[in-house]
Amino acid sequence: MTQYDSSPLIQAARQQKPSHIPVWFMRQAGRSLPEYFPVRGDGTILNAIQVPERAAEITLQPTRRYDVDAAILFSDIITPLWAIDFGIDITPGIGPTCEKPFRSEDDLQRLRPLDPSSDLAFQHDTIKILTEELTIPLIGFAGAPFTLATYMIEGKPSKTHHNTKSLMFSEPALWHKLCDALADIAIASLQAQIEAGASAVQLFDSWAGILHPQHYREFVFPHSQKILAALKSSGVPLFHFGTNTAELLDQFADAGADVVGVDWRTPLSAARQRTNNRVALQGNLDPSICHSPWPVVEQEVKRILNENDNTPGYIFNLGHGVQPTTNPDILAAIAKLVHSYGS
Amino acid sequence: MTQYDSSPLIQAARQQKPSHIPVWFMRQAGRSLPEYFPVRGDGTILNAIQVPERAAEITLQPTRRYDVDAAILFSDIITPLWAIDFGIDITPGIGPTCEKPFRSEDDLQRLRPLDPSSDLAFQHDTIKILTEELTIPLIGFAGAPFTLATYMIEGKPSKTHHNTKSLMFSEPALWHKLCDALADIAIASLQAQIEAGASAVQLFDSWAGILHPQHYREFVFPHSQKILAALKSSGVPLFHFGTNTAELLDQFADAGADVVGVDWRTPLSAARQRTNNRVALQGNLDPSICHSPWPVVEQEVKRILNENDNTPGYIFNLGHGVQPTTNPDILAAIAKLVHSYGS
Repeated sequence: MTQYDSSPLIQAARQQKPSHIPVWFMRQAGRSLPEYFPVRGDGTILNAIQVPERAAEITLQPTRRYDVDAAILFSDIITPLWAIDFGIDITPGIGPTCEKPFRSEDDLQRLRPLDPSSDLAFQHDTIKILTEELTIPLIGFAGAPFTLATYMIEGKPSKTHHNTKSLMFSEPALWHKLCDALADIAIASLQAQIEAGASAVQLFDSWAGILHPQHYREFVFPHSQKILAALKSSGVPLFHFGTNTAELLDQFADAGADVVGVDWRTPLSAARQRTNNRVALQGNLDPSICHSPWPVVEQEVKRILNENDNTPGYIFNLGHGVQPTTNPDILAAIAKLVHSYGS
Repeated sequence: MTQYDSSPLIQAARQQKPSHIPVWFMRQAGRSLPEYFPVRGDGTILNAIQVPERAAEITLQPTRRYDVDAAILFSDIITPLWAIDFGIDITPGIGPTCEKPFRSEDDLQRLRPLDPSSDLAFQHDTIKILTEELTIPLIGFAGAPFTLATYMIEGKPSKTHHNTKSLMFSEPALWHKLCDALADIAIASLQAQIEAGASAVQLFDSWAGILHPQHYREFVFPHSQKILAALKSSGVPLFHFGTNTAELLDQFADAGADVVGVDWRTPLSAARQRTNNRVALQGNLDPSICHSPWPVVEQEVKRILNENDNTPGYIFNLGHGVQPTTNPDILAAIAKLVHSYGS
């Protein structure tokens, strides 16, 4: 279907046998690389994301340092919400913030449909530059409705997310309308990324793991499933990731993902059992371990590779994003080690 | 062994059949109750903890509002570290902070052994007042070495705990010395609480769930096991609690606990399987759900009670502490509902 059908990333995502174990790192681009800052300039990350030449350059930077099997578009899960003027922004040192949080039916008015051809024209242009330059697959991505809703409802990063849960439990009809609108936005954004040239897409539901599986099933699953179903016909592999998902991995697979991301807490063997081998897995080195001396990191990478035991549907990654203080040389060495495994 | 041997809490903790399902709430005392603030006064929580009359009164307050089956000593997991002058404090609005974080062998000098008879004399006096007043069991508690170490090493609450993990992986010998000293402190504090009259104790390892099970086994398990083994001969039931412990519940049971606390993410049925029915379980209502209208809360409480399906070794609780904005009337109604269940 694409020029990368026989690449290790796409083969592993389809549970075929790749020529080597593919590897990439969530948040491989951006703050952990010194060369990122001059390109980003003085503005915020959202300013850099809207300038195709800058966003493309930042996307390419890690592919020059690391022998990774994929690039991931430099963007943010809130980009589409910001593009439709919902009133969400990224505050440096804090994260996504929303001055007027989503609290009632009236706030649905602020969620107009996304028209990627105009709202996200810069994203299209960035991907066009990248597909010219890259010789490895480009992964596009979007935020899943639950995780986006937490930022919209809390207004800022939260430990307990209790406003989100209150709205979800107290006003289920409004909750489902909100998530349905967010699902449409994710679908439009991801379809546009695929049309522009992304060879795979990842749906990030980073905070879904704060829910009991029964609440996930009722309030989150239908919306993630809708997104993945809408993208199925595109033919590109669909990745789905969250943290603290020990009790949710089966539902992440049921929702229609080809690849389920596993955080560092769950052993791959347990994840295989819970997903019943019907999806490929991606993960799951603890990002904090990258701050340790190389022999410690090496041992951990080998432990994970041994745990995977040459099962073909497997993509090496961290169990969450690269931390900003990570030494890039460690990531370079990890990519090399993964590629040399078994050879 | 104590006057409360036939109380529902102690019977359930021993997997005997209690006359009703016992219930209490982690953090039932303190900030969620309006009557707490006048008693605490203008000082910090640590100031109130050291005045036996105040600490006892704060401990008793929730037992007047709620028909709970246990009181829990009003204190904090950092109290013993603060009492030995390690240099840890509670900063209002932030949590435990440590101006000179633990970073090297030299810092072990600041961890002198705890002598509860002098360092924690106020704790003894508080418990003496409480055992006179109470007609239900009093639960004592301590912080487990891992969770205490995170506060000592990070210096403040952290999202990634990467300094903690770095020290653990890079300097395992120092890590084990630190945890061994913290285990001795926990043992001394808990033994003193039991001698003063506590009828049960809970070991809080709230943040252990940030570790992969193999790292937990190597770096944490031996220290928690040492604490629980040292307390076994006291004869009081030993409770052990953490969050995000889906992959660790079997080890929490193996460590020697009589009761394992389950956070709200893991269904009780899954927790029973993973602990193989050899311990009692405690939990696991999502504390955020207490902000919802009563019919939602009621349905959730019933769902959990039905999930437990009358298994005798069961104590109702939240899956983590009461949030400060919780309406006390909701907790009162929950206690009533739990007690009426099945009758």
